[in-house]
Order: sequence, then structure tokens, then C-alpha cells
Amino acid sequence: MPNGAQALMKTLADAGIEVCFTNPGTSEMHFVAALDDEPRMRAVLTLFEGVATGAADGYARMAGKPAATLLHLGCGLGNGLANLHNARKGRVPVLNIVGDHATHHAALDAQLQSDIETVARNVSPGFVRTTMRTAELCRDAVDAIRAARGLPGQVATLILPADVSWGEGGVPEPPPPPPAPAPADAATVAAVAAVLRSGSRCALLLGGQALREPALLAAAKIAAHSGARLLAEVFPTRLERGAGLPPVERIAYLAELAGLQLAEFEHLVLVDAKAPVSFFAYPGKPGELVPAGCTVHTLCAGHEDAAASLAALVAALGAEQATPVLAAPARPRPPRGRLTAAKVCRALGHRLPENAIVIDESITSGLLLPAMTAGAPRHDLLTLTGGAIGQGLPNAIGAAIACPERPVIALLGDGSAMYTIQALWTLARERLDVTAIVFNNARYSVLNVELERVGAARIGPKARAQLDLDGPRLDFCRLAQGMGVHAARADHAEAFLKALDYALAQPGPHLIEAVVPESLGGTKRRLLPWLLRALPGLPPALGRALKRRLAP
Amino acid sequence: MPNGAQALMKTLADAGIEVCFTNPGTSEMHFVAALDDEPRMRAVLTLFEGVATGAADGYARMAGKPAATLLHLGCGLGNGLANLHNARKGRVPVLNIVGDHATHHAALDAQLQSDIETVARNVSPGFVRTTMRTAELCRDAVDAIRAARGLPGQVATLILPADVSWGEGGVPEPPPPPPAPAPADAATVAAVAAVLRSGSRCALLLGGQALREPALLAAAKIAAHSGARLLAEVFPTRLERGAGLPPVERIAYLAELAGLQLAEFEHLVLVDAKAPVSFFAYPGKPGELVPAGCTVHTLCAGHEDAAASLAALVAALGAEQATPVLAAPARPRPPRGRLTAAKVCRALGHRLPENAIVIDESITSGLLLPAMTAGAPRHDLLTLTGGAIGQGLPNAIGAAIACPERPVIALLGDGSAMYTIQALWTLARERLDVTAIVFNNARYSVLNVELERVGAARIGPKARAQLDLDGPRLDFCRLAQGMGVHAARADHAEAFLKALDYALAQPGPHLIEAVVPESLGGTKRRLLPWLLRALPGLPPALGRALKRRLAP
Repeated sequence: MPNGAQALMKTLADAGIEVCFTNPGTSEMHFVAALDDEPRMRAVLTLFEGVATGAADGYARMAGKPAATLLHLGCGLGNGLANLHNARKGRVPVLNIVGDHATHHAALDAQLQSDIETVARNVSPGFVRTTMRTAELCRDAVDAIRAARGLPGQVATLILPADVSWGEGGVPEPPPPPPAPAPADAATVAAVAAVLRSGSRCALLLGGQALREPALLAAAKIAAHSGARLLAEVFPTRLERGAGLPPVERIAYLAELAGLQLAEFEHLVLVDAKAPVSFFAYPGKPGELVPAGCTVHTLCAGHEDAAASLAALVAALGAEQATPVLAAPARPRPPRGRLTAAKVCRALGHRLPENAIVIDESITSGLLLPAMTAGAPRHDLLTLTGGAIGQGLPNAIGAAIACPERPVIALLGDGSAMYTIQALWTLARERLDVTAIVFNNARYSVLNVELERVGAARIGPKARAQLDLDGPRLDFCRLAQGMGVHAARADHAEAFLKALDYALAQPGPHLIEAVVPESLGGTKRRLLPWLLRALPGLPPALGRALKRRLAP
Repeated sequence: MPNGAQALMKTLADAGIEVCFTNPGTSEMHFVAALDDEPRMRAVLTLFEGVATGAADGYARMAGKPAATLLHLGCGLGNGLANLHNARKGRVPVLNIVGDHATHHAALDAQLQSDIETVARNVSPGFVRTTMRTAELCRDAVDAIRAARGLPGQVATLILPADVSWGEGGVPEPPPPPPAPAPADAATVAAVAAVLRSGSRCALLLGGQALREPALLAAAKIAAHSGARLLAEVFPTRLERGAGLPPVERIAYLAELAGLQLAEFEHLVLVDAKAPVSFFAYPGKPGELVPAGCTVHTLCAGHEDAAASLAALVAALGAEQATPVLAAPARPRPPRGRLTAAKVCRALGHRLPENAIVIDESITSGLLLPAMTAGAPRHDLLTLTGGAIGQGLPNAIGAAIACPERPVIALLGDGSAMYTIQALWTLARERLDVTAIVFNNARYSVLNVELERVGAARIGPKARAQLDLDGPRLDFCRLAQGMGVHAARADHAEAFLKALDYALAQPGPHLIEAVVPESLGGTKRRLLPWLLRALPGLPPALGRALKRRLAP
């Protein structure tokens, strides 16, 4: 009879969970030993738990099914919390396995003893369970898997005491049935159809599952038929885009811009999305971004089938024959001269390979990425769903393991890359086809903007030093080489293109350090001219609104 | 009238909190802006929250008063949790300030919204408070400071919503009174004195405050007078040791060895320490390490004055005139030839500068450090109090800032160094006099031992790969250089000594990568001979007990 860990391993593999991102300790050693009993399970070691959890997030976004993590007690969970938060906010399924002391050891309050469940509730409000008996382990695991991969997906945390893992009498369990979501009910569809037929200015706000091809095509037919506009949530979990797919305009991160973007609409229809709110609060500014006078409707929520709901709406409108607008193939010309963040985005648009997975954690530096890649070959875009930076490199590990045949390109700010820089080692160890591009502008650029946006009056040198990553300047090439990743640095567009070509042609992983000037001005005086220069790259509605606002 | 952040800054400085270890985001921008209003406050930027919290831990251990942290919402707290756990277990005072969304923004469930308090309870069971009004902020801060620096010290978490920080009407508060702990009561002292006079085999187990010089000297008088032996808890928060100070024998990490170490005693007297338990549980082995037949007594607990309690015990025994045993000055001869972990420890004993702060997170590699430095010039030893690895480099930042005139030497395993490797950047930026020594044996050595100790039957290649940090091998020199830290590599003792001399003579920071072979065998066959070889360096009681046990 298998021990708990062996039975768990078989249960996981039977349920299609075939990758485990790990950073184990002593209490997880029986789980580790059981890896060799289950040929279907791939274990990917990380040097830091935030890498493991971010990899599980990226894997599930692309594989459409959860991976497992393996974390070491409450402290390991703490280290993994930020990227589990991103998964939670992105409604991504993750089976989060946290090893614990043996059940009889907890009362001794040994050094690593802490209250794991309380931490886990932060990211797993829907499912936290500590298994207390080996015989129950696999039933609990199946419950956790069911919870994780339900619609919407969630982070399910299974706490696994060491003695439950090593105990004899594990009983493998068959997998849970897949979720079977229903579309929106007919009355809701009819009501939304009536709104779209009303002649008012309408937009569909697409999120979650509605940003995948079948749903997008249905939404584009609705838009073509009704005149409604298509918007996407600000930070999509996974957005399919590029030439041949319907273009959607993402809500802007800056609340000031998002407000302009939404100002023209009288009705906003939510499709697996929530009504947009400001990322942060600012003194004297509203947090709700939906303008007064705009009515919000919900076609379908996260537990419903977004594509089927949109298909039903197509039918209700009689829009089956409408011709959806699709992005035409188009690439910007290659950039030249001194490298800037905008030129990196242009270079990517110029060279993006077919079927790439693009992970964008470039914060301010990637602002022109959507515009520059709008007509590039079709690709998937993964973004920072929960705002907890340090997601990009770990996501790239998971995406590359989920889709070994697809090139993965991760765009990272210098600040954000450092939170989980240990991911580079796992990229090298697993020989993943990932090109990591780090925008090195030697500062937390976004905070230079935010410091002003929150209305902080005087900004002195001590405050400014908190946003500055210079002195010493980070050398990402050395960091990459220190973890076995091939690296190149570019401060001119030509060198960047050459490095990009090399990285895309040679087996990965690669890191390209793009040395760029400060991408956003630190003062309003500099921000506005910058936005004006950026206007041609901005989404059309936003560009129009800004031009109106900024006109003398 | 100051805003909340400005009033808070003055309140902190008035209470002697003059260092803040930060990783701020938008919700902390008013706190950041207020830094320039308070010349007494030093803000130290880190690139990862675990560095900030570990630095606050190391600072307080050496400064004897708390620093503040500045973390960004629940995710920032999660990233900082492991080192806050170490502080909690070490009973180290930390004022943990976690920025949050504005109070009116929480209901909007924006991207970074999460339940911060639930996470905070893991490390701050004694004090978690969210301030809801600017006028109350400084009163709450004073309560938090009082809680943090009470005896025993603790991590007090103050959650600071952005609007409370930016709101007008902050009211600075005077500092709380310092804690005034009492010694153990007379009856307890008399009872312990009777035990020590009984002629039984007794040991004093010293922990917490009892490992500082005044308490140690009193304990050594008691030992000289009564024949009791002096033991220290396995992972001291801060142990003063070296030539001229009383030597104490630390409880061994390996429960098997600790059991042998404790086997001879009939009475164990706890002095600001808890009864020793096994670090982890193992199948079929007891978690309590106190042997059957040994009676445990408590002289004083964490809320009492350990030095005064020991002084009272000295008086009760009439031991004032006893001559304490003090460590004689002695240094091992310099090592030669191919570098090993033991030779690194020997080299440190040979060269340790006067008044150093030694931070030991070397896990298996530092096993001989206590023996090799027993007669070195007096120094402070900080260890991994909570078992959450990633403490060493951040602790070094804090210790060096608390004691700028003292050399800091941090010993790190390769695995453990990677959890918070971002600390190197802050070491460089603040130009701290720290020498970081990384034992690079390309594996989680301790787990090779643990995998066997937990009784995992077969150990296959997938399991073994989980413990192996090779492929690619980490290059710590490049990692250090990538963050602006001078680095050298040594694989021979002579080169190591030369690098150490250079690092100790030149302004820091420095990193020395000590390339060493696997320090602990992966199988029991290899572990026992290794222990036998290590015997001369082991604590005396442990050496005697092991020799008896291992004799044929």
C-alpha cells in the first residue's frame, strides 16, 4: 500500500496535474521521494518560492489546467504569496501544496511552527484545508483540485503535514469531473441585446475567458453589428491578439486616462469582467471609473461560460453574418539610434515571431507595446493581474513549460525583475525557450509618476532616493550569467535588434538588458509632453479624448 | 498642521526609531515624501521586502531597539513574512508598517486589495492594528512601538491606509515609556538554588537576553559554584562569545545529537529559553528532547529580566566570589590546501577581527564555526532563529547599520543566500562594512541528510535533483558584481585567506565565494564518518556522548 505522498502523486497525475513547481524542505521530503514513483510528474525546482508560485500561475494560464506547487511551511507560503495573489486576481487555477510539521509536532512550537492557514486565506479564500489523516489525503486533494479548476479558477491550498505524507495507507482517488459552466440565462441575454439595439453609445468590457479567440470573435461580430466598442480589462490574465484576431482596447492603468477612455459611453456591458476601478486611490479623485450617467450591465460573470454567453448574444442580435473587424497584419519599421523604451516596443513589433507568448511586466516602459504589436503575428499576452510585481520571470517559466513549442518573451522593468530574479536559474536549468528583456532605466519609474499623482507636496532628496535604482546600477547581464543564462546588453536600437534576433534564433534562455533613459518624466511638466508624444501609439479612443483634453 | 505621515515620522523619531527599511509603492508615497521632513530618520531602500524585514531584524538584534519597515500592502507583507517570522521566533522588536489602499478604496477590490490583517497575524499575533483616522495614527503608532519593544520583543504590525497617511490633522505623540521588566520572584530563585545545591547533574539552558555578557557572567559564576553546566538554545538571537567571555555549549540542531547532549542531566533550568524540541519531526522519534527523568525548571521567562534573575540566583547561592570560567584567547592555525567548509571555519577562527558581528546562516557548512572561533576575539553571533532561510544577508545590512564601527561577517549557504540575494544591492548602495562568505557546494546539503533522516525509502534521480543546485552552478561572484559588490572566489585555503584579509582591510561590502565540496554525506554511511572526523570541533559534551555511542 502506498504511503500518503505516493498516493497523492498518483491522484495528481490521474487528474492531469503533471507539473509541480517546488522549493521543498525537510517536511516535504516524502513528497520529494515519491516523485520517482510517478513518471507522469515533472518536478521543477526553484530557488525561491515566489518563483514556484509565479511559474504555476504562468503554466495554468497557458495550459488551461493547474500545476501544483510544493512549499515549505508558513514561511515558504509567505515567500510565494505575492504571485499566488496575482493568480487569485487573475482567477487562475493553482493547486498550492504547503508542507507542514507532523501533526504531533505542531504543539511543540518548533522554530518553523506558524499558523499556515491564516496566511493561506489571503490567497485561497475559497479553499484551505489541512489534511489530518493519510487515508483522507487523496480525497482532500481531489476536493482541492475541483476547487482550483472550477470556474472561475482559484488558488486552492492543501496543507500537508509530514506524518500524513509519510504515513502508510494512502488511497489514490479518481479525478473530479471537469467543470461544466452554463451560459448567461436567456433573459439576461435579451436585456443586453435590447441595450445594444437602443442606439446608445455602448461598450463591451471583456475580461477573463472572454479574451480568448472564440469569445473575441463573437464579441467582434456583436460590435460590427451593433456599433458597440470592445474594451478589455486593464490587466488581462491571457489575451489572444495580433493579426487576424479582433482588436480590443485595454482600459488604461492611469485612472485619469481610463476616465477619458470611458467618458463617451452610456452603457457598459461586463463580460466576465468587473466594473473598472482605479488601481490606487488618489486624494480627491473617485475610485470608480465608470462615468456618471453610464449604466453597467452584466452579460456573464466568472462562473459562467463567456464564449457561449457571447454566442447567445450574437444569436439574439441576429449578428451571425456580421463581419468582425480583425487586426490587419502590420509591423512597425525597425527602430534606429539611441535605445528608448518605445524603440524596444517597436523592435518587438517589428520582429515578434509567430505564436509567441508575450509576458508584460514592463510597467511604464511597455506603454507602447500594445500599439506596436497590434498587427504582429498572433500571440498571447499575459499581464500583471494582481499588481504584485515579480510575476514576469516566473510566469515565463510556467508558460514555457506549458507550451514548449512556442517562443516566450518576457518584458520586465528593472525594479520588477529583481523581486524574483532567482527565476533565471530555473530558466537555465530547464533550458526553456524564453527571452527575457529587462528595461534598465535605473529607477522605479512608475513611482516617480505616482509620487506626484498622490499629491505629495515637496519631494526632497530622501524621497527621491527611494525611487532611484542607481548607485550602484544593476548589471542584469552579470546577474543572468551568474545563474547560467546567456545575456547581452544594448543601448542602441541596432544592437537591440541584433540581440533579439540572436535570442529568437538560438535555443534559450536569453536575457537582453535594454539600457534606456527614464521612460516617464518625474514631473507633470514632463509627463504631459511625453503623453502627447506617445499619442500616436495610444488606443484610439484614448488618443481622441486626450487630444480634446490637452487642446489649448 | 502636519499630515498623518509627517506626524508619524516625528513620533517615530521621538521614540528613537531612526531607521526605516523600505520597499514602497504608491500607497506609501506620502510616507516617502515625509522622510525629508524628519532629519533623524534614515530610509534604506531594498529591492525586495524580505531584505527590508530581515534588515530590521538584524538592526534590532544589535541596536537593542526596533527599526521600522515600510511594506506595500498584503503582497509586500507576504514577501517580508519569512524574515518577520525569524524576528518573531527570536523575540526581536520590529515596527512593521504596511501601507494599504485608502480606506474608501478597499471596497472596490482593486488589483492589490487583499486581507492584510490575516497575513499579519502570522508574525504579529500580539499586535496588528489598522489605523482608520489620521488623528489616531500616532497614538496607534505609540501602542505599536510599546508592543514591539516590550519584553519579550515582538513584531508589531501597523497597517497604514493611504488616506490616513495623506490626511491633514496628524498629531505627534510622545514616546511610550521603556519596558521595566522584573526579575524572577524570590521563591522561584530559591527553588532553583535548591536544585543546584542538590548535587544532581544540572544544566542551565540560556536563551534570549541570557546570552548577553552580564547574564553570561552571572551564569558562569553559578556554574563555577554549583558545578552546573551552561547550555545555550540551538539558534540564539544574539550570543556574545569569544575570548574573555564564558563559553556556553549550544544545543545541536540534529535531534539525535541533542538527545545525546542532554542525556546526562537530571535537571534543566530554563533561563529565558524554552525546553528544547526537535527542529522537525521524524517518523518514530520523539519531538521533545528533554530526556525522561530530567526535570525542567524555569528561572525566568521572556517577560522577566534575565540578567537580574541570574544575579539573584548568584546571591541566593552565595556565588558572588566564584571565579567564572572564561574562554582563553586561542586561534586555530591557518588552513592549507584544497578548500573545505571546515577550512573556511578554521580561517575565520584564525583571522576573526576584534569586535566582529558574525551572522551564521551557513546551515551544514558552518558546523565547525563555534569550535573554531571559541577563543577568537569577542564577537556577537546572530543565528537563524526561526528556520526561515534567507535571513543572513538582510541581517547583515541591519547589523552594519546599527553598528557602523564594527566589522560584519555573514556566512551563507549557497541555497540560503539565494532567497534574499537582492540584499547585495543594498549592501553596496549603503557602502556597509560587510563581508559575505558564501559556501558554494552546489546543493541543499542539509536536505541530503534530511531526506534520509525522515526515512524516505528509495531516493531516485528526480528526488535527488530537488536537492541539487548544480546545472547550472551558481556564480556568486557575478551575482555580487551585478549588484555592485566586490567579489572574489576561492577554492584553496590560501586564496580564501588572502580574499578574507583583503575584505577585512578594505572598505566593504565584499563577497567571497568559497567553493567547497559537499559538506555532509548524502547517506548514513558517509554521515557518521564525517561526524567522527568533526568530533574534535564539536562541543565537549556532544563529543563525549558521540564517542560513547559510536564506539564499537
